[in-house]
Amino acid sequence: MGSSLGRLFKITTYGESHGKAVGCVIENCPAGLILTEKDIQPDLDRRRPGQSALTTPRKEPDTVEILSGTFQEKTIGSPISLIVYNKEAKESDYADFKDIYRPSHADFTYHQRYGYRTYVGGGRASARSTIGVTAAGAVAKKILKEKLKTDICAYVSQIHDLILPNGFDNSNIKKIRDIAEKNDIRCPDLKLAEKMTEKIKNIKKEGDSLGGVIELIADNVPAGLGDPVFDRMDALLAQAMMAIPAVKGVEIGSGFSAASMKGSEHNDLFFNEKGKIRTRTNYSGGIQGGITNGERIFMRIAFKPTATIRKEMPTVSEKGEEVILKAKGRHDPCVLPRAVPIVEAFAALVFADQYLISKTANYNKL
Amino acid sequence: MGSSLGRLFKITTYGESHGKAVGCVIENCPAGLILTEKDIQPDLDRRRPGQSALTTPRKEPDTVEILSGTFQEKTIGSPISLIVYNKEAKESDYADFKDIYRPSHADFTYHQRYGYRTYVGGGRASARSTIGVTAAGAVAKKILKEKLKTDICAYVSQIHDLILPNGFDNSNIKKIRDIAEKNDIRCPDLKLAEKMTEKIKNIKKEGDSLGGVIELIADNVPAGLGDPVFDRMDALLAQAMMAIPAVKGVEIGSGFSAASMKGSEHNDLFFNEKGKIRTRTNYSGGIQGGITNGERIFMRIAFKPTATIRKEMPTVSEKGEEVILKAKGRHDPCVLPRAVPIVEAFAALVFADQYLISKTANYNKL
Amino acid sequence: MGSSLGRLFKITTYGESHGKAVGCVIENCPAGLILTEKDIQPDLDRRRPGQSALTTPRKEPDTVEILSGTFQEKTIGSPISLIVYNKEAKESDYADFKDIYRPSHADFTYHQRYGYRTYVGGGRASARSTIGVTAAGAVAKKILKEKLKTDICAYVSQIHDLILPNGFDNSNIKKIRDIAEKNDIRCPDLKLAEKMTEKIKNIKKEGDSLGGVIELIADNVPAGLGDPVFDRMDALLAQAMMAIPAVKGVEIGSGFSAASMKGSEHNDLFFNEKGKIRTRTNYSGGIQGGITNGERIFMRIAFKPTATIRKEMPTVSEKGEEVILKAKGRHDPCVLPRAVPIVEAFAALVFADQYLISKTANYNKL
Amino acid sequence: MGSSLGRLFKITTYGESHGKAVGCVIENCPAGLILTEKDIQPDLDRRRPGQSALTTPRKEPDTVEILSGTFQEKTIGSPISLIVYNKEAKESDYADFKDIYRPSHADFTYHQRYGYRTYVGGGRASARSTIGVTAAGAVAKKILKEKLKTDICAYVSQIHDLILPNGFDNSNIKKIRDIAEKNDIRCPDLKLAEKMTEKIKNIKKEGDSLGGVIELIADNVPAGLGDPVFDRMDALLAQAMMAIPAVKGVEIGSGFSAASMKGSEHNDLFFNEKGKIRTRTNYSGGIQGGITNGERIFMRIAFKPTATIRKEMPTVSEKGEEVILKAKGRHDPCVLPRAVPIVEAFAALVFADQYLISKTANYNKL
Repeated sequence: MGSSLGRLFKITTYGESHGKAVGCVIENCPAGLILTEKDIQPDLDRRRPGQSALTTPRKEPDTVEILSGTFQEKTIGSPISLIVYNKEAKESDYADFKDIYRPSHADFTYHQRYGYRTYVGGGRASARSTIGVTAAGAVAKKILKEKLKTDICAYVSQIHDLILPNGFDNSNIKKIRDIAEKNDIRCPDLKLAEKMTEKIKNIKKEGDSLGGVIELIADNVPAGLGDPVFDRMDALLAQAMMAIPAVKGVEIGSGFSAASMKGSEHNDLFFNEKGKIRTRTNYSGGIQGGITNGERIFMRIAFKPTATIRKEMPTVSEKGEEVILKAKGRHDPCVLPRAVPIVEAFAALVFADQYLISKTANYNKL
Repeated sequence: MGSSLGRLFKITTYGESHGKAVGCVIENCPAGLILTEKDIQPDLDRRRPGQSALTTPRKEPDTVEILSGTFQEKTIGSPISLIVYNKEAKESDYADFKDIYRPSHADFTYHQRYGYRTYVGGGRASARSTIGVTAAGAVAKKILKEKLKTDICAYVSQIHDLILPNGFDNSNIKKIRDIAEKNDIRCPDLKLAEKMTEKIKNIKKEGDSLGGVIELIADNVPAGLGDPVFDRMDALLAQAMMAIPAVKGVEIGSGFSAASMKGSEHNDLFFNEKGKIRTRTNYSGGIQGGITNGERIFMRIAFKPTATIRKEMPTVSEKGEEVILKAKGRHDPCVLPRAVPIVEAFAALVFADQYLISKTANYNKL
Repeated sequence: MGSSLGRLFKITTYGESHGKAVGCVIENCPAGLILTEKDIQPDLDRRRPGQSALTTPRKEPDTVEILSGTFQEKTIGSPISLIVYNKEAKESDYADFKDIYRPSHADFTYHQRYGYRTYVGGGRASARSTIGVTAAGAVAKKILKEKLKTDICAYVSQIHDLILPNGFDNSNIKKIRDIAEKNDIRCPDLKLAEKMTEKIKNIKKEGDSLGGVIELIADNVPAGLGDPVFDRMDALLAQAMMAIPAVKGVEIGSGFSAASMKGSEHNDLFFNEKGKIRTRTNYSGGIQGGITNGERIFMRIAFKPTATIRKEMPTVSEKGEEVILKAKGRHDPCVLPRAVPIVEAFAALVFADQYLISKTANYNKL
Repeated sequence: MGSSLGRLFKITTYGESHGKAVGCVIENCPAGLILTEKDIQPDLDRRRPGQSALTTPRKEPDTVEILSGTFQEKTIGSPISLIVYNKEAKESDYADFKDIYRPSHADFTYHQRYGYRTYVGGGRASARSTIGVTAAGAVAKKILKEKLKTDICAYVSQIHDLILPNGFDNSNIKKIRDIAEKNDIRCPDLKLAEKMTEKIKNIKKEGDSLGGVIELIADNVPAGLGDPVFDRMDALLAQAMMAIPAVKGVEIGSGFSAASMKGSEHNDLFFNEKGKIRTRTNYSGGIQGGITNGERIFMRIAFKPTATIRKEMPTVSEKGEEVILKAKGRHDPCVLPRAVPIVEAFAALVFADQYLISKTANYNKL
C-alpha cells in the first residue's frame, strides 16, 4: 500500500521528522551483493540538510545503519533494514502552526483523511520521508552499475526563470555529473549555477521560495525493461517522481513538446549502428510501448516552490478562523539541489525492480 | 503486476487486437451496486473506432458483456468480468510489417523483452488494451457519482498548434462536457474544434499524424483521498495517465509552470467559505501532500502524434537490415478524441480505489 | 485481493455458476511457451461433473478457450485469458433455497459480508470457481514439466473409514498415477477403490455424503523454492489448499504425527548419494525452513463431506424462521475424485510462481 | 513478497539473530488508535527466551520501541515502525556448524536458494524473525478488542503423548487463558501441564526435543470476514500458521476428523437464538465458504520437535562430506510454550486485515 514501492525489489519506508528514526526495508534484494553503509552514505550526504548555504540550516548528519539483511558484508536474501535516527526534531519550531493549516502544505489534507494531524514537522509529509528512498536507491544503483553498467544522473536544469539553453549538450553523462556535483545547485552549467545561487540567496532574504526543473538522464539501461500495460516503464517512473513532495509535472522524452509535433517529426527512426539497432533521434526518451529500447532514458520533473515561506500569508485555523500565518522555523528556499539524489534514487529503484522482473519474461532464457 | 491496477478496487485487463477478445476483471467492487451493460456501453462507444471521420475507418462495435459478478442486475462482491469480442482483426493488414520494426512502436521493445513479438496489430501494445480500462472506468464512475456526486470530464485542449486560449473558462463542468461531447474532437470550444477537425483531415491526407493535450477536470472529489507516500493521489494519477499509449507528459495543477513561480505566488491560500475551508487559487490541482483537498482536480496530459503514418520512413528489419517502411492499414491520424474517455476512466479507477481505502483510514470512523 | 493468487505467475479468477462464464487471467507467464487448449482441456475433463456415476449428474462439457496471450500457439508475455462458458445453469434447481440458509454452506456468511446473496448455485462459493484454477494449473504444470521435469500427482487416500494402509508404497509416482487415474475414485489401490465406490454409491442412495483425504506427491521440485518468512513454500501451499472449498486440514510431511515425535526421530539426516545431498527420511515433506530441499513434496489434505445432502435438515430462513430443508438438485455425494486435479493445479501454481521468483534470488546467477 | 503479510493492515518484518535488530513496519493502521510500547511489550514478554526453565537459557529482554507512526501516543495513519534490538548474538555458539548442514534446519535450503548462508543463528530462519509478528499482532489485538471485543486465546493442548482429553471443556475463554497463562507450558489443564513440564525437563536432559499441538480459539470475531476465493479466512489463517517455523499441520474446525464423517453428521445446523442466527455445532470452526459466521474460531496447529538437539547426528558438510554433528549452543527442547503468543499474533493480524477490508464490501454501508 501507500508506503511500499516495487514488485520484486520492493521497499517499505517509514518515519516522520518528529519520531525517533526514519528508515526503509528492502525486500527481495538478491543474495550475494557486497553491501555496507559506505555504499549508501554518499547519496544521503547529497540529500541531507545543511550541506550548503542554499539549504535549510537544520543540521542532521543522517547517518545510515544496516540493521539486517547482510552477513559478512554481503546481502543474504533477507530484508535489508536501513535506518537513520532523527537528531534534531524541535517541537517548539512548530508550536505556532499547531492549530493552523499552512497553505499548500499537507496539514489540511492529512487532517481530512486521518481525522488527525501531526503539526510537528509535517509528519509523514515531511521531506524526511525521502531518506529511506534515497538509501534504498543507493542499493539499487549499485546493482545496476555492477550488472548493467547503468549510469544514472540527475541535475538541475531550471530555477525560476534561469534555464539551461535549448540545445544544451548533455551527451557526456560523466562530464555533466562532474560539473553538477561541484556546485551547490547541482546545475551542469557553472555560470548558470552561479546565477541560480545568487537568485536563491536573494529569495531567501525576501522570505520567499523558488521552483524549478530537474532533468534525469540514464545510460546503459538495457532494452526490455517495463511491464505493459500498467507497469510500463514510463508509468512507473511517473508514479515514482510524482511521489516526491513538490513535484507537479513529469515528462518522458519529448514530453509536452510532443503535443505540437507531427508523427513524421516525432518518430525515432531505427538504424543499424555496427550491428546494434539504434534510433536516430530519442523523442521517446528511451521508452517505447512502455518498455526501454536501450537508448538513453530522459525525463524532466517540475518542482513547485517550497510552500513554507517567511512572508505573511492569510490562511485558516482548524476551527475555520481566518488568520495570518508568519512562519518561522528553518526551511529550504528551493528544494531542487537536495532533490537531485532523490530523483536518481527513484529511477534506480524502478529500474532495479524491472531488471529483476525482466529475468522471468522470456521462457527460452529461464 | 503489469496488467493489474489498483489496491482494493483492482482491475486486471487482458487482450490483444489479434485474439478473440479483450476484457477486464474487476475485483473488490462492493456488493449491491446496480449494474448492467447499459452503464458501461456509452463510454465504450465514445472510445470505439469508426465513430467519426477523424478516426480509423476500422469498424468495431465493441459491445460489452458482463460475464460474472452480478446477479439480478446487482453486483455481488465477486469479480466482475467484462468482455468485448474482437470482430475485425485482419492479419493481412500487418503482413508487410512482419519482419520490420516500425519506428516509435513497441515492435522492437517487445521483441527485446519477450524474445517474441506479435506483428499483428501491435499485440498487447495495441490501443485495444484500453477497452478493459474504459469499461471498468465506467463502473468506477457510477460508484463515484452515486456515492459522492463526483463529476469527471476530460476534453481536448490542444491539437498541434491549436490551443485553448489562456484563461479559457472551464469552471462549469456540465457546460464544458456538453460542448465537448457534441463535436468529433471533444474540444470545449466549438470554433477551435472546427479548426482542429480541419487540421486533422488535412494531416490525414498527408499521411501524417498530430499530437495534442487532453485536460481532465473532476469536481466533488472529496478531501482525504490518496495514500502517502508512494500512493499519493498525484502519483497514482500520473502512473495511470502514463499507462495510456502515446502519453509523454503529465501535469497536476500548475504543472511545469510551477517551476518559474515563487512560493508567495504559488501557495493556495485557505479561506472560510460559509463554513467550508477552501483555497482561493488552485495551483495544487486539488491535491496537497498527495491527498485530495476537496478542490477541483486538474490535470494536463500530453500525447505524442500517432506513430503509424503513411509517409515513407527508413527503419530496420528484425535482422538489422535498413529498409523503407510504407505503412498501409487503418489508423487514427490523431488519437486524442478517442482518448478522452480513457483519461476519464483511469481517473475514475484511481479515485474509486482510493475512496474505498479511505474508508479504513480513520480509526474513529470505523 | 481475494480472487488473485501468486506474486509473479499470478492468476485472477472469476465466475459463478449462474453467470455466463467462469475463467482465469494469468499474468506474467513467460513468453515463448507453446500453448494451446489441448494442454489445458485434459485437467478440466478430470474435474468436470458427470464424468462418472459417482459425481453429480449435471452435464457440463467445460470446454476451455484461450482468448488472449498467445500468438501462433505460443505465449507472448501478455495476460492469458482462459474461459469456460456455463452451459447448464438452472435457476429452478435452487428456487427452494431462495430464502433459506443451507447448513454449512456459504449462504449465511456471504449474506453477512456482502448484504446480498446469490441463491442460485452458491454464487462465487460454487465449486465452479475452481475451473479457472484447474485451467491455469495446467499451464503451470507444463512449464514445470518442460523446465524442471517436475511431476505432480494427487490421489485419494481415504474415503470415510476406508484408508490406504500405513506403509502404502507410493514411491513410484508414475505407477501411482496409472492406477489412480484408471478408477473413478482416483485411488491408487484398485481393491480399496472398489470398496470406496461401493460406499459412495450407498451413501448417495441414503441421500448423505462422505469426506476423505487427498494426498499430493511431487517429484523433481528443485531445491531452493520458497520465500521466507511469509511466503514459505509450506505456507503458500497451505493457503492454496485451504482455498479449495470443503478443505478443513492440511499437513506437510509428518503433519500432525510430528506432534508426538522426538527431535531425534523426526530429524531428516543428510547423506551423500553419489554427490547429491539427500535426506534419509522425509518427515519434512520436501520443505525445510520454508524452502524446498529437492526431496519429494508430500502433503495431505482433509475434505469434509459435501454439505448438500438430500436428508432433511433443520435450519433457518433469512428472516430467522426455523424451517426444515429438503434439498433436491444435483450434487456430488463425495467431492474427492473431482478435487484431485484441483489439488494438483494449486500445487503447480505455487511451484511455478516460486520457480520464477527463485530466478532472481541469487545475485551471482543473475 | 516474502516478508510482507496482509492486504490493508500490512506488515513487513526484518531481522536475523546475528544482526543489530529485528523489527516490523505496519502499514495502513488506521489513525487515532491510542498506542504505546506498553500495549506491545506484554506479548513480547510471553514470547521471549529465558522466561522459564523450559526455554532456552539465552537471555534477551526483547524490549520494543516505536520509531514512527504515532504522535502524542496516537497512531497517525503513517507506517508504524517497531524495533527490538538484539542483545546477545554470539557468533562463537555457531562456529561448529559453519560448514555443516544441520538436519531439518534451513541451512541447506537457504544455501540452495541464495547461494549463500548465514551460519550464525539460522539467519532469517531463526525464531527471532517472529518477534516482529508478535509485536504487530499486539497492535492488531488492540484494534480487534476495542472495536469488536474480539478475544483470542491460544494454548498448548498436546506435548508428545500428553494430550488434553477428548471433550475437554474450553468453552470459557477467560478461564482457559487464566489457567494457561499461569503455568510455564501454557496448557489450560494444570495437572497435565505439570506432566508436560516434567516430560520436557527430562527430554532436555536427554539432549532431545519434543513436538506438540497448539489450539487457537477466538470469540467475537464478527460474521463476514474473509475474502473468497483465495483470501478465504481459512486459507489466510492456514498460510499464517504455516509461516511459523516448525509448524507441519493446520486444522480448522473438524480438521482431519471431517474425513471420516458423513454430511448429516458434519453439517452445522442453524437455529435462532433469541433473534441471532447461530449453529448448533461448530465443525466449521467459525468459517463457512471462507467467511466467518460469527461462531467461535477454532484451529489446531501441529509443531514438530525442535531440530536442534544435543544428541549426535550424522549429516553432511557443505562439501558433501558425511560428518557427525554434536550441537552445543542454547535451544528450546520444546518450542510450544513460546509459540503460543505467536499463534495468537498471526490470527490477530489476519482478523484485523480482513476486518478493515470488510468495511468496503457492502455498497449500501459505504
